[in-house]
Amino acid sequence: MNPSGLEALIEALRCLPGIGPKSAQRLAYHLMQHDRPGAARLGDAIQHALQAIRHCQRCNTFTELDICERCASPRRDASLLCVVETPVDMNMMEQTQAYQGLYYVLMGRISPLDGVGPRALAMDKLLARATDGMVREVILATNYTNEGEATAHYVMAMLQAHGINVTRIARGVPVGGELEFVDSGTLAQALRERRSVGAN
Amino acid sequence: MNPSGLEALIEALRCLPGIGPKSAQRLAYHLMQHDRPGAARLGDAIQHALQAIRHCQRCNTFTELDICERCASPRRDASLLCVVETPVDMNMMEQTQAYQGLYYVLMGRISPLDGVGPRALAMDKLLARATDGMVREVILATNYTNEGEATAHYVMAMLQAHGINVTRIARGVPVGGELEFVDSGTLAQALRERRSVGAN
Repeated sequence: MNPSGLEALIEALRCLPGIGPKSAQRLAYHLMQHDRPGAARLGDAIQHALQAIRHCQRCNTFTELDICERCASPRRDASLLCVVETPVDMNMMEQTQAYQGLYYVLMGRISPLDGVGPRALAMDKLLARATDGMVREVILATNYTNEGEATAHYVMAMLQAHGINVTRIARGVPVGGELEFVDSGTLAQALRERRSVGAN
Repeated sequence: MNPSGLEALIEALRCLPGIGPKSAQRLAYHLMQHDRPGAARLGDAIQHALQAIRHCQRCNTFTELDICERCASPRRDASLLCVVETPVDMNMMEQTQAYQGLYYVLMGRISPLDGVGPRALAMDKLLARATDGMVREVILATNYTNEGEATAHYVMAMLQAHGINVTRIARGVPVGGELEFVDSGTLAQALRERRSVGAN
């Protein structure tokens, strides 16, 4: 029914999470009818991002550099390594202004129901990072959801097997809640009250 | 916080209707982390569509040709012209298989609250189309919403001032409803029971 270029756009828009066939059609019509400049900007931004955005070799977050500015900064405490699920969570930690160490971003969480196991999260990269000789303490700041807890447990077991001191942010974060939606005060509290986990 | 290429992508995604800052960030992370092939397809599809998709010179729908296949077809009845709001509505009419005439797609509706007046809808193009000497009857198939009714009334007044026979699809479409969500049978009924409007 639609010209092929429009059908291709509708189909391509469905790669966005939460966008079904009807929504994709509406988005495509909107872009072609009402916002061609916006569509052009979007097309350019996607192609630029695909080319420029990669993962920091040290902390695994999104960056346009080999090593991101935070990891390269001499003002951060290289003896502390905070493990978070996503860049959003890292930004939330930064906003507390209660942490001066470095990060490792898992870019996900262990979730057997979604078929995401330890291998998909490149845990070996985290292990190499945590055993570089500088890190004295690894702070687990994954979410207090079931998946986040499972992830924390896996990371803890992996790192303690290598003799690394592992802590977990305090359960000030509401059980079942996600870091992204917690206020900075609560998160700062949880960070201060981090506790040792496992057999130590 | 984010690298500039990622910020640009997040900002660009906000051109999509219904996507706020948080959703845009999630979409951008999803594309960069989990679906780079999909993102590449989307970028290509947008740029191809921007280049290829334009409006049919006769019926105003989206097409990659000067005149779309339907308008160019010798099998359609050129004496009937059905006015609809969007390409989706045209597709719905086609699915009834109860109509063999041609279309004119307004690509919108008169909506004073949204600042959309007759000029934004290029009514002069419709007038030129309806007065080409071939058209015997113009069938108004705009939605039975307030905006669709206002649009139908405006088109009716404009065309009748030029002596054109104007009809309106029957109010079998539920009042306040939109064509896109009506079943084909109801829509076919509404088409058969179209009635003259205005002072004739």
